[in-house]
Order: sequence, then structure tokens, then C-alpha cells
Amino acid sequence: MLKNVALITEYNPFHNGHLYHLQLAKRLTNADVVIVMMSGNYVQRGEPALFDKWTRTNEALQNGADLVFELPFSAAVQPAHLFARGAVEQLMALGVSEIVFGVEHAEYNFLDLARKMPTQAAEFQRYNQTFASAFNTELAQATGVRLDDPNDILAFGYARAIIELNADIKLTPIQRVQAGYHDDNLPEAGHIASATAIRMSTADVAQYVPQQTAQDLALGADVTPFSVGWWPLLRYRLQTTSAQDLAHIYQMNEGLEHRIKEASYRYTDFASFMDQVKTKRFTYARIQRVLLYTLLNVTDDDMHNAMAHPMLHLLGYSNSGQTWLRTNKKDFTLPLISKVNRELRQGEYELQYRVDSIYGQLKGDKRDQNIGRVPLRSLDIAD
Amino acid sequence: MLKNVALITEYNPFHNGHLYHLQLAKRLTNADVVIVMMSGNYVQRGEPALFDKWTRTNEALQNGADLVFELPFSAAVQPAHLFARGAVEQLMALGVSEIVFGVEHAEYNFLDLARKMPTQAAEFQRYNQTFASAFNTELAQATGVRLDDPNDILAFGYARAIIELNADIKLTPIQRVQAGYHDDNLPEAGHIASATAIRMSTADVAQYVPQQTAQDLALGADVTPFSVGWWPLLRYRLQTTSAQDLAHIYQMNEGLEHRIKEASYRYTDFASFMDQVKTKRFTYARIQRVLLYTLLNVTDDDMHNAMAHPMLHLLGYSNSGQTWLRTNKKDFTLPLISKVNRELRQGEYELQYRVDSIYGQLKGDKRDQNIGRVPLRSLDIAD
Repeated sequence: MLKNVALITEYNPFHNGHLYHLQLAKRLTNADVVIVMMSGNYVQRGEPALFDKWTRTNEALQNGADLVFELPFSAAVQPAHLFARGAVEQLMALGVSEIVFGVEHAEYNFLDLARKMPTQAAEFQRYNQTFASAFNTELAQATGVRLDDPNDILAFGYARAIIELNADIKLTPIQRVQAGYHDDNLPEAGHIASATAIRMSTADVAQYVPQQTAQDLALGADVTPFSVGWWPLLRYRLQTTSAQDLAHIYQMNEGLEHRIKEASYRYTDFASFMDQVKTKRFTYARIQRVLLYTLLNVTDDDMHNAMAHPMLHLLGYSNSGQTWLRTNKKDFTLPLISKVNRELRQGEYELQYRVDSIYGQLKGDKRDQNIGRVPLRSLDIAD
Repeated sequence: MLKNVALITEYNPFHNGHLYHLQLAKRLTNADVVIVMMSGNYVQRGEPALFDKWTRTNEALQNGADLVFELPFSAAVQPAHLFARGAVEQLMALGVSEIVFGVEHAEYNFLDLARKMPTQAAEFQRYNQTFASAFNTELAQATGVRLDDPNDILAFGYARAIIELNADIKLTPIQRVQAGYHDDNLPEAGHIASATAIRMSTADVAQYVPQQTAQDLALGADVTPFSVGWWPLLRYRLQTTSAQDLAHIYQMNEGLEHRIKEASYRYTDFASFMDQVKTKRFTYARIQRVLLYTLLNVTDDDMHNAMAHPMLHLLGYSNSGQTWLRTNKKDFTLPLISKVNRELRQGEYELQYRVDSIYGQLKGDKRDQNIGRVPLRSLDIAD
């Protein structure tokens, strides 16, 4: 019986910090199989990933992952608590036994904190513009602790999801090292930099990433940043869609549709547009997610439908991963997809197919992101 | 009292054939004022115009036009009979006395032909894929004449509209000279070439166009052809819109939405996409119009609403044009717009504003196509 450990990741792109995390998780848990739940072509902040899900799956496989599953768009591009819940739901369906994750404060007992919070599941499942501050006020009252760091907040989300879903999964936080999530600069020494710094750097980043990622970076990003190639599509969309129809977009509320549409007329560049759109009540990430939903025409119905019908989408596997899969897939509690066909495309996979096809279009790829693809298989030289 | 003559045009771009037509019309009718009803930023075949409506208005004013009005999108981008009807409706509201237009067969009496056709106004007002052939079969039975040439067919449309609208407008067909509408090559001799040949030519076309147009051409087209810059937007739109929503697009019927959507997944280039989409039942122009409606999100409701609320939109005038306008505008039977404000934009001008804003975006113009603009005034040196 192979022991497993699970990681929840974006790998945008895969760097030495991720490698350290993966190897430490395996060592700490004495696991045989590392299961990675990775965001697909879009990441939590509402941006397209630097490389598509297949390239990033390959990076993960080349660096020790045994199974890579796609965290569906309907979980991956969400506020932290829904991201966390979606990921835990997927891992629970796979029957994983333990999740190891990096946090800013490994000394906290996140399960304990989550248990002490008054259960307001209804409130935590829908987005609220004052969520972060309301959450912290409540948490501080109940526990004396405030969570201001992004990975601590995610960890709380995992704990909350485990309680709510009654999942039999052990949570193992580990201390994050060196680079903070928001560090935009490459450190002068060491081999670990933040993904943000690596994405933004124009200098050589070979020191901070494994060989596969260095090769991928050398070929250039798959897509331009949101503010470049995606902005003309968004602006076009805003100008050709009525405010009434925009109001159906997921998380478009409080009249944001009017504000966004008006700004699309006034400003031809993304920075000025965002300056006009953002307010104190909405975080940049929230606005950017709503803009991405708009660009991809993700309505309330689309998102709720996708959240109500989760599926497991296998992106890649090693020999060990395949062995584990053979033994365990009969116990999976959600449908496992390893190939997308036209029937799925028109059915429950429609949203995922759609958002991936736009990524493919912006990538300029003649190859479909889903149909005709099979999960990647790593060479497993080390096995 | 200034005598007027009206022309119905696209000027895409304004060339020597147009100049000849304008001058001949003025001479034939002994008119003081030449009124031009010109397509705006999009032309009848479902394509963006080479230059925007302001640049083309200027070309017309520099070459003898006294008043330039915009044929609204809801008339300009339509099958021939609706194009013709929309233009006549506008000119009737202006109170013009005569329309002079080029045809392939000036010997026909188009009013007579139209009178002899069984009146089937209902059928002629909606598009039918077999319209051209059904029309000609019926016409040949009633009159012994077939109309196969585009300007003859338009002329019939003017005549039919005049009968149906009971308009007191004289129709004066003149024989078209030299270049046929569909001639794609520049003629070796002479000074007249088709607009198609001029648009497609990479050679110097100064011999075929007046000075203003030559200057405009030297600066390059305002937008790329439909198959270039517009195709990524169309493909994006098709991939992010459900077949159900696509079915609301004007003239999208007989399951065309499924055919088009499917093709958008399979083909990344416009030519292959069109090869897949076109059938014997639909002309290229019809398909291209539906694609343009799709790109601009023009629904049945949008179009019928715009057709039900026509307005006169002044784009430019000369001194003589201004004098004529002062005397006659009190008798106009439709609202005259010379400035678009935000109220109009959100009201009856919404469709026109929307389609123009997308043209402006593709042009890369920071300046709005409507708001903040006033009609162009020609210098009128010759007056």
C-alpha cells in the first residue's frame, strides 16, 4: 500500500521553493506518492498562468510529483475560502490522507482556530467585500489571533473546509522560507525567490528554478499578462455587452457593471481603466477576478453549476502515480476524467473547456487545450 | 430656393468614379446642393470600412458633397433591399427631390419593374436565403427581365421603397462607366477603378483617386481587414457565447449558430473557418454580415429597435449645405442629430454608438467616434 501526501499549488511557474516544499512534504510524511492539486490555466488572483496547465504539469512531474490533478476553474479562480474549500473537496474525493502546505506562521493550529470561530458557513461561502476585515475582527474576538498573511488565510480555509466537509485529512503546515508571497524582487543570495519575482524578472532566474522551468522560461511565456493581450478582449466585451447582461456575471454586484462599462469607454489603457474602477471596498484581486469572469463570460449560473458538479481531471502521472491510481480509483467519490471528449465539452465540462479555449487562443496554439490530450506521463528515471 | 440632388454611397474609399458620379448628378439635375447618404464605419457586405466615417466624410466634402449624412448601421449593413429601403427612408425624411445612382443597365425603368412585381412587402422586408433567385424568378415571370448586377438590384430596391413609402422622390439611374463593382484589378488605362481594386492594390493608386483620398491612403487604412484584426475578437466571442445566446443574433437562423460555433473551435484562421461555415444556401456576404452582427452583439431586438427609431445623423456640410439645412430642417420628418451626448448613447443611439466604439477600438483611436465630435465643415473654397 503506497502512502500518499497531497499539495495544493499554482506552480506559476514551478520554482525551487516549490521543489523544497514537495521534497520536504514527502520526507516529513514518509510518503511514496506525491499528489498535486494544481490550478489550471488561470490562477487565484484572476490572471492567466504564465504557462499552460500542461507545461506546468510537466514541470511538476519532472520535479517529483507523482500525480497532477487540475483544480477546476470554478475553485481555482475564487476568493481564498472558496479556493481552499474546492481544493479540499477534490482531495477528499481522491481519498488523500494528508495535506502539507506552507504558511507564514506554522506555530498556529489552524484546525483549532477554525473550530473556535463561530460557524457561519453561509457567510463564508459567498464573497463579501469586507470579508477579510470582518473575518479578522471575528477571529480576533474568538481566538485572539489575526491572520494577515495569504498562506495563513488559505490554511485557515483548508481547516474550515475539513471541518465543514467532515474530511478525514491530516493538515500539516510547514514554515515558508526566505521569499514572501508578495516579494517582487529576486533575493541577492540563495536559491529561492517568489513566483512573482521570477515572473517579473528580466534577469536570468536559473538560480531560482529547476532545469525544466528554466527551459520553459527560455522559450518565453505562453501568454502575455492580463493587461496586455487580454485587455483588448475585455474592453471589447464590456463595450458590446449591456449592463443588464453584465449583471449576470459571477460576483458582479453593487452596480459594479455600470462602473466597469463606463470606464471601458473612457480609458483605452488597462492601468487607467483599473485606476478608475478600483475602490477602497474592492481589493485589486477581487476586481481582477470579476474582470476575468467577464472576459470569459462566466455567469452566476455557470459558476454555481460547475461548483455543483465537480470532477477530477488528471493532467499527469509517474509510474508510482499510476500504480497508486490503479489501486485507489475505484474509491474515488467524484468522476475521474483523463480525456475530454465532445460530449463532456457540451456538458459538465463546458465552463472549463471554454476558459481553456480562450487561453489557447491567446497562446496562439492551434492545438486544443483539452480535446485530443491525454495525461502526461513522466519518464520516472528516478524510480 | 436651393435645388438638391441626393446620392446613396459607401465611399470605401472615395475615388474618381465617385467624383464623376457626383459631378454628373449635379450637372444632370442642375442642383445647387449635393446631399450624400453614406454608410458609416461598416459597409453593406459586413466589413469595416477602410477609413472611418469622418475621414470618408472629409473626402466627400473635399470633392463637392454639400451635406453628408450617415446611413445608420441598421440600414447600411443589411441585404440590398433593406439597405435601399433604409436609405430612401432617410432621404424622404430630409425631403430630397431626386436620387441619382449608377446602375449596370440604365435602360431599365426600375420604378416600372417594381410596380409590375406582385407586392409582397412582407417577404421583401425579411431576409430569405433564396431571396436573390426567388426574386429573379418572380421578376422574370412578371416583367421578362432578370437583375443580376448589384447596382441594378439596389436600384430596384430604391424603386420598391419609393412605392412602399409613397415617397415623392425622382429616381434617375445613370450608366456606370469602366470599372465593374466586382473588378478586383486596376485598369491599365483611364482614371476610374473599382473601390475593391483600390482597396486591394499595393501599387500606387493616385491615378484613380482624388488628392484627399490619396493622402488618406498614404497614411494607411484605419483598420485591418475583417479576416485580420477582427477575427480574433469574433472567434473569442463565439467561444465564450452559448449557442442559445448566439441564436438571438440578428439573421442567425436555421441552426447557423451551431455551425459557426463548432467551426470556431476547429479552425484558428479565418479562411479555413469561412470554408467550413459557408454553404450553397448562404452567400458569402450574408455569412459575413451575420459574423459582423455576432462580433458586435447585434441581436434581433437591437436591430428591430434601431430600424423602428431612425434618426438623421449629420456628419459634414459645406456653406451651401449649411444654407440648405437652415431653410429645410424645420420640415425634416425624423430627428436630426448633429452631436451625440451620453443620453443618446444610452438611448436610441445605443446600437450605433456601440458598433462605432468597436471600430474606434480596432482603429486604436483614443478619440471617441461620436461623443465630442461635431459635423465636419468643408472650407468651400470653390463657393
